[in-house]
Amino acid sequence: MKNTFGQSVSVTLFGESHGEAVGAVLDGLSAGVPVDEEYIKLKLSLRRPSDGLSTARREPDDFQIVSGAYRGFTTGTPLCILIPNTRQNSEDYDENAFIPRPGHADLTGFYKYNGFEDRRGGGHFSGRLTAALVAAGAVAQTALKRKGVKIGTHIARIADVKDRPFGDLKRDLETLETLLFAALDEEVASQMKARILEEKARLDSVGGVLETAVTGLPKGVGEPFFDTLEGVLSHALFAVPAVKGVEFGAGFGFASMTGREANDGMRMENGEVTFLSNHNGGVLGGISTGAPLLFRVCVKPTPSIGSLQQSVDLRAGINAELTVKGRHDPCIVHRARAVTDAVTALTLCDLLALRFGTDFLGGERA
Amino acid sequence: MKNTFGQSVSVTLFGESHGEAVGAVLDGLSAGVPVDEEYIKLKLSLRRPSDGLSTARREPDDFQIVSGAYRGFTTGTPLCILIPNTRQNSEDYDENAFIPRPGHADLTGFYKYNGFEDRRGGGHFSGRLTAALVAAGAVAQTALKRKGVKIGTHIARIADVKDRPFGDLKRDLETLETLLFAALDEEVASQMKARILEEKARLDSVGGVLETAVTGLPKGVGEPFFDTLEGVLSHALFAVPAVKGVEFGAGFGFASMTGREANDGMRMENGEVTFLSNHNGGVLGGISTGAPLLFRVCVKPTPSIGSLQQSVDLRAGINAELTVKGRHDPCIVHRARAVTDAVTALTLCDLLALRFGTDFLGGERA
Amino acid sequence: MKNTFGQSVSVTLFGESHGEAVGAVLDGLSAGVPVDEEYIKLKLSLRRPSDGLSTARREPDDFQIVSGAYRGFTTGTPLCILIPNTRQNSEDYDENAFIPRPGHADLTGFYKYNGFEDRRGGGHFSGRLTAALVAAGAVAQTALKRKGVKIGTHIARIADVKDRPFGDLKRDLETLETLLFAALDEEVASQMKARILEEKARLDSVGGVLETAVTGLPKGVGEPFFDTLEGVLSHALFAVPAVKGVEFGAGFGFASMTGREANDGMRMENGEVTFLSNHNGGVLGGISTGAPLLFRVCVKPTPSIGSLQQSVDLRAGINAELTVKGRHDPCIVHRARAVTDAVTALTLCDLLALRFGTDFLGGERA
Amino acid sequence: MKNTFGQSVSVTLFGESHGEAVGAVLDGLSAGVPVDEEYIKLKLSLRRPSDGLSTARREPDDFQIVSGAYRGFTTGTPLCILIPNTRQNSEDYDENAFIPRPGHADLTGFYKYNGFEDRRGGGHFSGRLTAALVAAGAVAQTALKRKGVKIGTHIARIADVKDRPFGDLKRDLETLETLLFAALDEEVASQMKARILEEKARLDSVGGVLETAVTGLPKGVGEPFFDTLEGVLSHALFAVPAVKGVEFGAGFGFASMTGREANDGMRMENGEVTFLSNHNGGVLGGISTGAPLLFRVCVKPTPSIGSLQQSVDLRAGINAELTVKGRHDPCIVHRARAVTDAVTALTLCDLLALRFGTDFLGGERA
Repeated sequence: MKNTFGQSVSVTLFGESHGEAVGAVLDGLSAGVPVDEEYIKLKLSLRRPSDGLSTARREPDDFQIVSGAYRGFTTGTPLCILIPNTRQNSEDYDENAFIPRPGHADLTGFYKYNGFEDRRGGGHFSGRLTAALVAAGAVAQTALKRKGVKIGTHIARIADVKDRPFGDLKRDLETLETLLFAALDEEVASQMKARILEEKARLDSVGGVLETAVTGLPKGVGEPFFDTLEGVLSHALFAVPAVKGVEFGAGFGFASMTGREANDGMRMENGEVTFLSNHNGGVLGGISTGAPLLFRVCVKPTPSIGSLQQSVDLRAGINAELTVKGRHDPCIVHRARAVTDAVTALTLCDLLALRFGTDFLGGERA
Repeated sequence: MKNTFGQSVSVTLFGESHGEAVGAVLDGLSAGVPVDEEYIKLKLSLRRPSDGLSTARREPDDFQIVSGAYRGFTTGTPLCILIPNTRQNSEDYDENAFIPRPGHADLTGFYKYNGFEDRRGGGHFSGRLTAALVAAGAVAQTALKRKGVKIGTHIARIADVKDRPFGDLKRDLETLETLLFAALDEEVASQMKARILEEKARLDSVGGVLETAVTGLPKGVGEPFFDTLEGVLSHALFAVPAVKGVEFGAGFGFASMTGREANDGMRMENGEVTFLSNHNGGVLGGISTGAPLLFRVCVKPTPSIGSLQQSVDLRAGINAELTVKGRHDPCIVHRARAVTDAVTALTLCDLLALRFGTDFLGGERA
Repeated sequence: MKNTFGQSVSVTLFGESHGEAVGAVLDGLSAGVPVDEEYIKLKLSLRRPSDGLSTARREPDDFQIVSGAYRGFTTGTPLCILIPNTRQNSEDYDENAFIPRPGHADLTGFYKYNGFEDRRGGGHFSGRLTAALVAAGAVAQTALKRKGVKIGTHIARIADVKDRPFGDLKRDLETLETLLFAALDEEVASQMKARILEEKARLDSVGGVLETAVTGLPKGVGEPFFDTLEGVLSHALFAVPAVKGVEFGAGFGFASMTGREANDGMRMENGEVTFLSNHNGGVLGGISTGAPLLFRVCVKPTPSIGSLQQSVDLRAGINAELTVKGRHDPCIVHRARAVTDAVTALTLCDLLALRFGTDFLGGERA
Repeated sequence: MKNTFGQSVSVTLFGESHGEAVGAVLDGLSAGVPVDEEYIKLKLSLRRPSDGLSTARREPDDFQIVSGAYRGFTTGTPLCILIPNTRQNSEDYDENAFIPRPGHADLTGFYKYNGFEDRRGGGHFSGRLTAALVAAGAVAQTALKRKGVKIGTHIARIADVKDRPFGDLKRDLETLETLLFAALDEEVASQMKARILEEKARLDSVGGVLETAVTGLPKGVGEPFFDTLEGVLSHALFAVPAVKGVEFGAGFGFASMTGREANDGMRMENGEVTFLSNHNGGVLGGISTGAPLLFRVCVKPTPSIGSLQQSVDLRAGINAELTVKGRHDPCIVHRARAVTDAVTALTLCDLLALRFGTDFLGGERA
């Protein structure tokens, strides 16, 4: 399948940037999970442009729950969330020329969909689609929180400005729940914003790194050989536009460690195994250890920049130059954070349901 | 599914380190692909210990094709390859104690399989399983080569010793086909080996980074939103034991690039789009661009080391110390290279079959 | 997955009878298939109550294409069709009692969704959901027709009134495209209607049998061992509410045939294999033969009848009697016919895309 | 996927009639299920020719458990069972002519695998493959029995000779566990055998109907809208060679029933819902009701018969006549019974694991 992900709990994504709406169908989530519209709004707000950092269209992200919720709870049948595109503009692109933006899916969309794709605003490849993911993910996060599983992502890095590492996870994850610009260190947040605005002024853009922590994940989750916790999560995370790398625990840092440094020693504490370190990021052999799940994703600089770039005219078959018009985000790292949270929540719901059954995440009998 | 991966072309893996055999079932590959036993042997040899770097058991890796091949070609029905475990030793582990190796799947296997798992030699989590993957992958690679798709992986790094980057890909990939220790620079190869032996002498181990290139991959391959080329590949790559990070193109390096630096400009050449750079590693929007596919995986240091480590006795519920006995590889990076090639080949066969149909990789009518 | 079906081309269904809307997401269909709204309307009209035979709510079945179509063609990305529930009534069922209708999913929905299910009007189990299937199926049928694949279903039987068998398939399938009550013999149609009204007058209901023919299906379609043409189709057909049996070709009639009678002899005609009979219904070994695909499904009598029935009160845990209130169809066989066509079209698109690639059903480059 | 079936618990099938071996990989079954080799042998014996009714090759069906079992229990990792083809004959078919048997997969195998298929003895389409299914199914049946789920199939009909219907299910299922020729009425068994021998003498073959009952299946199992209990089971059942129809409960008999007759009334007994009848065969809305699961499959007459038949020479492109040489079963209904049991067990394990988690079918901690 292409736009559906997950085995027991799955999400199906649809929509284009300038079509009627974007939306998601969340299927297989247990019945009896509270559907908290305020929480969905909160999560959508974390994905929206803020602080003048983003210049993209400002839409209310008003969503509509079309099915799957009744009297405030999930019914266990597919929950469809629709987010209408209220401000799509109807102007058409030039049919006689098609000059793909370098670094963007414009080109490959054309290869794959043979020119029938709706290219307005990036079409199905638009970051707009992630609003629907975030909305569905918020419901998944609600389900997980009731089971004690908490997810939070901070901006580990924008260009060369780095946030402090995760500290007290309980507190950090609480902070991140509502933080609009997700740097844990306030001063770093200011520097990051300044860095973004600097590139914006140069008609350029910047990338960065997001770091996610999950606490409370039961041990024994993940289905190797192939459906490892890392594999399934990375599969979903690479669907987030602009993500080009995923690493767990020490990740690429393992290359310069020895086994003695890398191995996480164990101790018994009150009958439970605890770890002296967590370089493996809470996963061994593709299965959760009970320690916090830790991973990082790299988000590349936004490809749509105002500078002059070398491209081609696919219709005419000649070289062409391109200056991307309109307002584009000089950075999407801080926005992508809500999306990685969502994708993580959806994936963990799936793996938990596979492991513990379809009722595991739900409510007692109504 | 757990031990089966792929939609149109799939591989199913089975076996334990000290059981009867390990094996793989390759299903959905087109009929008419030559099954070249010498080529399978070659690929298996690249995965085997060499040069005194590895001290693990030396088995002939004799394989048996149980089904799916007839008169030298794939039949189109499942190809099962069996690799008997000729030298498994039969001695049992102590039933009264179970002290998991830090950094190893010992612990999580116990969590997941409730103590029924066959733990001898790592059981189903053993690197031995990858021999079957490599054998199946060799058949997949044969299919791809006939379509002009070539795959090669070099050791980009062992600890802090770095290989030269890929250069002339045509030549480099040819070299890598048969290179036993896959560093492109011979001098670097010696340094890497020395570095490994150094840690071995310290009863420690080292990690590293593998870099893979694929040439000839048709454009338009990958099934977003979720089944992106990156997502599906990473899903498979994280199944390779000890892989903890995957990045495409510039990967985590994108964090310190601007859009202007990161975007790959385009030119028309003889009616075909070409790229002025390939920071995106041949993938945009999750779909192949026609440029070489480039990615890196990080392989952590082998967890089984001879030094004293802190662990627990899971049966007694108390702390315990552990010195891993027996002979273990001080590094598996150079061996994992054959596995990433295999996994890449299997995944690309699947995505190509999905895109172009079940006959695409096969032979004309016999 | 639960509410998503298909591998390369898939459909995801959502909605409840009395919720906001029902809908379907059709994913993986090639780009460039005409999206003909009139044709969708026609197919929806064939599913709607007619002739006083059905007394269920009369809704316009106005649909909205939310995504995946642009300038009259599929884009290749997910096509979402929404059918708002304009006339759902808002009155609630009694919370203090829950008396499931015998023969209906009321009971098992309660078992599975723990009382959180939206039971109004049958909720997610309502026949209303099939409107969305029919709409998605109409797009699939358009794609198939352009490739010469035609589907048609007639009412083979209502109670003991039987239609004539298929004759000239070309003509019969053309007739069925627009026939409101799909008996091929007009006189039989009148008898069937009379039979239905008879049971309606008795506050009872009737079942029947539908027979489907598909012409033009390429040979070699179907993916045994498990994903046989018969297996995949039956999987989808049993999702149609009230279907309790599926048979291909002579089906259960094979039990009283000998091999000599049952085997379809072959002849060469103009270089093509033709068959002297088609008892196997166009499938051998789970793969299409090139002969017309023929199958029948049995549709049970509507469970919602006005007569007094024995049931239980699930909340009180006591026996209860039930007289289903409101207006219910005394027969759904004639309506289900549009649904089996849709389900067949969707399944065949999937198997064709798997076999011949994702572009197979689409248009040339736009 | 093609030769793999199941989501949480899956089976992968491989092998050809005259290759090295046939086999199955059973994946996802909980750890701690006893692997009872005697029980596997028993089930294999029920599938083997007996009583002179079958003239096919007599092979010992010796199997080898290659992986996934340790100390008598499943490990939770893939269980591979191999059944070597000890008596395959090595003589080749004539390369210059290929005359497919009418009613057989010979023709469609050639269409699909382009002449590369191993056609000896039917190759991958041979009934021989079902031995591996039966072996894997025996392990699944063991798991189910420990949970109180019992499966049994009797020969409801051979040609026009009919067995008595199921009566006391507890007793009938016990009887069927070891009955070599599965007619519940002994006299009927003799008549059936005589009927088979009669057609055998005429160089012809007969078909029949199998009826399966499952007791103890928990209520609430099945994943509608698409993965209904009926849909998933029928998907698997149509993979059994020669099955051409599947019906649940009253099945096609519903066509001549009214709602009043068809609906299964309910009563409360000791706090549990019981049914006044079971026309729906234990499934409503695609979900188990807790009543016995009941279904029937139709098995067509064996296509390989000794009489002269009309066929074609696919290589020469001309008409040809065919008299199937060698010894072939005049009936496979009585043998297919072990296969439907196996397929049912595998499918139910999958649906139960999806519903109740991956540990549900397993043992307590070892």
